[in-house]
Amino acid sequence: MTDLHYMQFALQLAKETIGQTSPNPSVGAVCVKQGEILGIGTHLRAGDAHAEVHALQMAGDRAQGADLYVSLEPCSHTGRTGACSDAIIRSGIRRVIVATVDPNERVAGRGIEKLRAAGIEVDVGLCEREANMLNRPFFHYIQTGMPYTTLKAAITLDGRLATSRGDSKWITSAEARHHVHELRHQYDAILVGSGTVLDDNPFLTTRLPQGGKHPIRIILDRRLQTPIDANVVTDGAVQTIIFTTSDRNVAYPSHFVRVERIDPSRPFLRTVLKKLGEEGIMTLFVEGGPSIHASMIEERLAQDAYVFIAPKLIGNGPSLFTSDRAEMNDSTKLQFERVTQVGPDILAYAQFEKEDDSCSQEL
Amino acid sequence: MTDLHYMQFALQLAKETIGQTSPNPSVGAVCVKQGEILGIGTHLRAGDAHAEVHALQMAGDRAQGADLYVSLEPCSHTGRTGACSDAIIRSGIRRVIVATVDPNERVAGRGIEKLRAAGIEVDVGLCEREANMLNRPFFHYIQTGMPYTTLKAAITLDGRLATSRGDSKWITSAEARHHVHELRHQYDAILVGSGTVLDDNPFLTTRLPQGGKHPIRIILDRRLQTPIDANVVTDGAVQTIIFTTSDRNVAYPSHFVRVERIDPSRPFLRTVLKKLGEEGIMTLFVEGGPSIHASMIEERLAQDAYVFIAPKLIGNGPSLFTSDRAEMNDSTKLQFERVTQVGPDILAYAQFEKEDDSCSQEL
Repeated sequence: MTDLHYMQFALQLAKETIGQTSPNPSVGAVCVKQGEILGIGTHLRAGDAHAEVHALQMAGDRAQGADLYVSLEPCSHTGRTGACSDAIIRSGIRRVIVATVDPNERVAGRGIEKLRAAGIEVDVGLCEREANMLNRPFFHYIQTGMPYTTLKAAITLDGRLATSRGDSKWITSAEARHHVHELRHQYDAILVGSGTVLDDNPFLTTRLPQGGKHPIRIILDRRLQTPIDANVVTDGAVQTIIFTTSDRNVAYPSHFVRVERIDPSRPFLRTVLKKLGEEGIMTLFVEGGPSIHASMIEERLAQDAYVFIAPKLIGNGPSLFTSDRAEMNDSTKLQFERVTQVGPDILAYAQFEKEDDSCSQEL
Repeated sequence: MTDLHYMQFALQLAKETIGQTSPNPSVGAVCVKQGEILGIGTHLRAGDAHAEVHALQMAGDRAQGADLYVSLEPCSHTGRTGACSDAIIRSGIRRVIVATVDPNERVAGRGIEKLRAAGIEVDVGLCEREANMLNRPFFHYIQTGMPYTTLKAAITLDGRLATSRGDSKWITSAEARHHVHELRHQYDAILVGSGTVLDDNPFLTTRLPQGGKHPIRIILDRRLQTPIDANVVTDGAVQTIIFTTSDRNVAYPSHFVRVERIDPSRPFLRTVLKKLGEEGIMTLFVEGGPSIHASMIEERLAQDAYVFIAPKLIGNGPSLFTSDRAEMNDSTKLQFERVTQVGPDILAYAQFEKEDDSCSQEL
């Protein structure tokens, strides 16, 4: 077996917990001696033991002289769970193989330094790209203070979100709509506009056969029009935060609902995202209509998109993106990372190309 | 080895000649005795020997007592090449395995009857769906008298064919544009509107490293505006037929160019397709703009579509389909048969769902 093999296994362990560790990263660890796996670990949830600690506990005394594969640099700071680098040093591990450095400023290479200072061999960079992809929400959150933001849209093959009369039930198949619930489960929060609440009165919860985590519901509602009997207000399934610029006072009859006022002189969307970041929301799933999507795209606040494409043509109707670019070269560019078929529909997962322009990360 | 194995091999032989047998179907044949392949054949071009004849010639005397796998019913009529069923009977073949019945009214089961009457065991229906898919252009042509018509479009992820100012260079990648030439090679004819000729002055030829067949060029040009110095007029690469309703007389300076007048009281598109069918054009590749695509779709004249989807958003601009449907249920429905990535783009191949309504097949 190769280093690559064990690192891929560590990445696999990390992948399985995507969505449940927020605002911490997903991390996997594998402890190996002479081709024998002695311990495995994965970080389960913020506040619990880190992946390395689980793997070392499983290995026990046999960790002495073993190698440890870990998908992210072990931490060097004593947080809620004690520094992993100290635990590794105590265990007698001979060599640590790290996929990528932790960008968190409290770590940022210090975990690796500490291990090396203790005489442990440390190799860095195996499967680095895959590890960075895996934790890009964490990296983005650490670097910008805003949630990693994913747009979700369901369109016809001719790019429409609805017919010209507004009918959108349903564009995609039952399979695709089921898949949306699997995506919701992976996000800390879900965002819609008040128009969606007024038109469709959705629950925005995760409804899966084996259960699932409900994302916190975020409603963009400048004029505070969310009705007091809306499902997101009354169902008590999970917290709902309504962001508004209005001074109106509306007494929502549920302690699950909170109204946050944004100073109208501040850029609305960006300020909302900063506030969500401050509350520890690392990932945001945007099930917007055309205007929310357009603003997210124009202000470069979205990092990726899931676009379901149904095998239908409906002609005129609202489109996914309502901006206006003169030249093809001015288009907003993405990269298709994964294209699959979900039932009769296509699911295209794309990442927005990063601009060098860093001003988009300033509030 | 199983019957399935040899029939799949016969289908594979047929697939390799798609595009070069028109207006004949693509057919493969495999002659087998006791697990030994004795002969293989494929139909190469209209007028040449049929697949069965090639396979039997290769097998020679050893065909006596062998099985013959053939992807389409052997013909019963003495056309340009002699009836295959007679050749099979003469060869001493013991059993014939047929994927699907030939819908051509001159065959339509008579080939199978003839074999059975001669005491040959005939099994019909193995891999029938695959065989029908393989020759759906031939089946369509035989049944409607019109070419099997494929739409091709390149759109952005938000469904646009161009920016609001008409810029469409380029939506898709060089890889996708290369792939279009591979598609052109497979079609008997290519169709555009005069607007495309006036705007882009294209050649519409097949330009591939290993060469390729140029499709006959069809220009829809009601007002006969195709310039006498257009590339499709002057390049002499392949025939160009201009369909018009105009009475104007334009002397195009090339014997490669022919002007066909359509009676303005007749339905234009459908009449053009009927005329193309009469000329033996079995497959038609439509590189239309929005209005040609919309007409093809509304009049149910298209059977399938290749849609290239680029990872770009451009906002307002002409869309793939300019009709107007009130309800989502009124949408024109397709089925994605194949979704792949071509360079950075998605290529979705979809077939239009067939309507029970058979009036669409009447002129």
